[in-house]
Amino acid sequence: MKTVGYAAHDSDAHMVPYHFERRALRDNDVAIEILYSGICHSDLHTVNGDWGPQSYPLVPGHEIVGKVLEVGSEVTGFEVGQHVAVGCMVDSCQQCDQCENHEEQYCRNGMTPTYGAPDRIDGTLTQGGYSKHIVVREQFVLRVPEALDLSKAAPILCAGITTYSPLRTWNVEKGSRVGVIGLGGLGHMAVKLAVAMGAEVTVISRSDAKDEEAKGLGASGILVSTDEDAMKQAANGFDLILDTVPVKHDVTQYAPLLDVDGSLVIVGQVGPLDEPSTIPLVTGRRRIAGSLIGGIKETQEVLDFCAQHNIHPECKIISPDEVNKAYEHLAKGDIAYRFVMDMSKLDVE
Amino acid sequence: MKTVGYAAHDSDAHMVPYHFERRALRDNDVAIEILYSGICHSDLHTVNGDWGPQSYPLVPGHEIVGKVLEVGSEVTGFEVGQHVAVGCMVDSCQQCDQCENHEEQYCRNGMTPTYGAPDRIDGTLTQGGYSKHIVVREQFVLRVPEALDLSKAAPILCAGITTYSPLRTWNVEKGSRVGVIGLGGLGHMAVKLAVAMGAEVTVISRSDAKDEEAKGLGASGILVSTDEDAMKQAANGFDLILDTVPVKHDVTQYAPLLDVDGSLVIVGQVGPLDEPSTIPLVTGRRRIAGSLIGGIKETQEVLDFCAQHNIHPECKIISPDEVNKAYEHLAKGDIAYRFVMDMSKLDVE
Repeated sequence: MKTVGYAAHDSDAHMVPYHFERRALRDNDVAIEILYSGICHSDLHTVNGDWGPQSYPLVPGHEIVGKVLEVGSEVTGFEVGQHVAVGCMVDSCQQCDQCENHEEQYCRNGMTPTYGAPDRIDGTLTQGGYSKHIVVREQFVLRVPEALDLSKAAPILCAGITTYSPLRTWNVEKGSRVGVIGLGGLGHMAVKLAVAMGAEVTVISRSDAKDEEAKGLGASGILVSTDEDAMKQAANGFDLILDTVPVKHDVTQYAPLLDVDGSLVIVGQVGPLDEPSTIPLVTGRRRIAGSLIGGIKETQEVLDFCAQHNIHPECKIISPDEVNKAYEHLAKGDIAYRFVMDMSKLDVE
Repeated sequence: MKTVGYAAHDSDAHMVPYHFERRALRDNDVAIEILYSGICHSDLHTVNGDWGPQSYPLVPGHEIVGKVLEVGSEVTGFEVGQHVAVGCMVDSCQQCDQCENHEEQYCRNGMTPTYGAPDRIDGTLTQGGYSKHIVVREQFVLRVPEALDLSKAAPILCAGITTYSPLRTWNVEKGSRVGVIGLGGLGHMAVKLAVAMGAEVTVISRSDAKDEEAKGLGASGILVSTDEDAMKQAANGFDLILDTVPVKHDVTQYAPLLDVDGSLVIVGQVGPLDEPSTIPLVTGRRRIAGSLIGGIKETQEVLDFCAQHNIHPECKIISPDEVNKAYEHLAKGDIAYRFVMDMSKLDVE
């Protein structure tokens, strides 16, 4: 299948139009016309080569919403015309304990990311959602509930599941005290989801500039991390802190905010942290953890949860030719919403 | 009560004989004649001022085994002549949720360490076990089971509980895969206790010099952390790693050894760690945690557990006048046992 999208041709992260082929439908494949494609900060890191060398041309994008164009002969769960979604993975071994436990993101043999990785069968490079079409193995296609606004659903596939999964893993429920460090694409979804689970949610930020925004999302307000008195008063006040900061930082300032047995879970930064002190860990049996997206079953769960609770990411809908401008904003970190490309506006020769 | 012991008189950690007074018995106090007093690496750090300024003269020691000399009028749990023990704490508020939950080590109002802290009632400096006698509130006195060898029981009060508590908190049981980094005072107790719980235990060390020793304690052997191939082969192989390294180090090399959802628990180092990478945390939902000794109830439990399983720390019994030599060994880290002073040998004018 011929298709077209935006690709980086080298590690300068400049996106240009790109014509390429999607594979012919296998028996268990679903062919999807992409309607909306979210832009994730990790797209920028990946195409920049920040997380390791890449093959180019590379079409990023792992927040994909579309409709089914065609299904393979063995596909039983989807039919033509149905609204569907694809997230950060398009395949895994489907045989190891992690896959059997619905945690394909931790597949023992390595899950196949939606873009930039060799396809498990033919070895070609997977290409992501900044394009008109995608062909994906049925097991990695999600259903988009009718109650969701299609134009705003895409970020649930990454920002949504990345924050939903640790909230579930660490048993957030009514009355849980949840902190969210940072209020960007991940952080704002963390707030909405934790509030919907009944938690008391506080945003932790370097300034109170986003106080109104935090309250608008349902948080009780902002704890200003540069205010030493406020930080001391807030000590032991959180059961779980989701740390969405996407750059190298110091977790030691946040650790004392956790109650005994509390956990700070890193979902933003991939790479080094500043030297941590063990003191707040040892003196409160506190934990620093990480969490990677979520499994396919849980990704369906967060889509359904968002539909049920009328949760939509804050999205700024743009045309695909604005992708490079969007990258500039992501690099600056000056936004508290998610860019979503309306792929119907993709208009290249 | 007049008593005598060894004290540091300033931060050079040189111990000299010291005559001092123990408080008159309060109604809920137990007066103890100390028979054996363990030497913990943390004694050295504390008297050196490594963990903050101290008041001097300071009598260290929080691994105390003795017999009851006298009891206060309200004491119901102990009688004269009984063998008892005292660990790292001698008081706490007894009213907060942590105390009520038998986790006095995390008392909201701060537990009172056995030495170097103000007594909660009269404000005098608490003085530890390198002495002939101690007077301790009944709630912080432990019973020594008859099956334990008195001369070897002292290290259970710190090295024992410090490793037993995280093994229990992280639910170690038959078949659990436990790694122990370092084979000193803490590490060798971690191995014995985890083996007795039915775990498969591996010692992780920079060389295989202690291989025989590790096997003698019941471990399957040594994983040599400087052997890159061995470390790669051991990836995902542990549910829990107890990290007993007492100096600044890099936990990132150990994190990939943990299976998905596994935890590395720091019990040795109080202070900074090298810059960790979030990658092994995020890609396996792995956790880095800390743990501080254990509550009084759990300390009684580990004493009883050791009696039941015939577990004794590897002890080198010394005379109190050898304490400064013992400190030299601790500073070098060249021993795989615990020094215990036979306090009956305390012979100073």
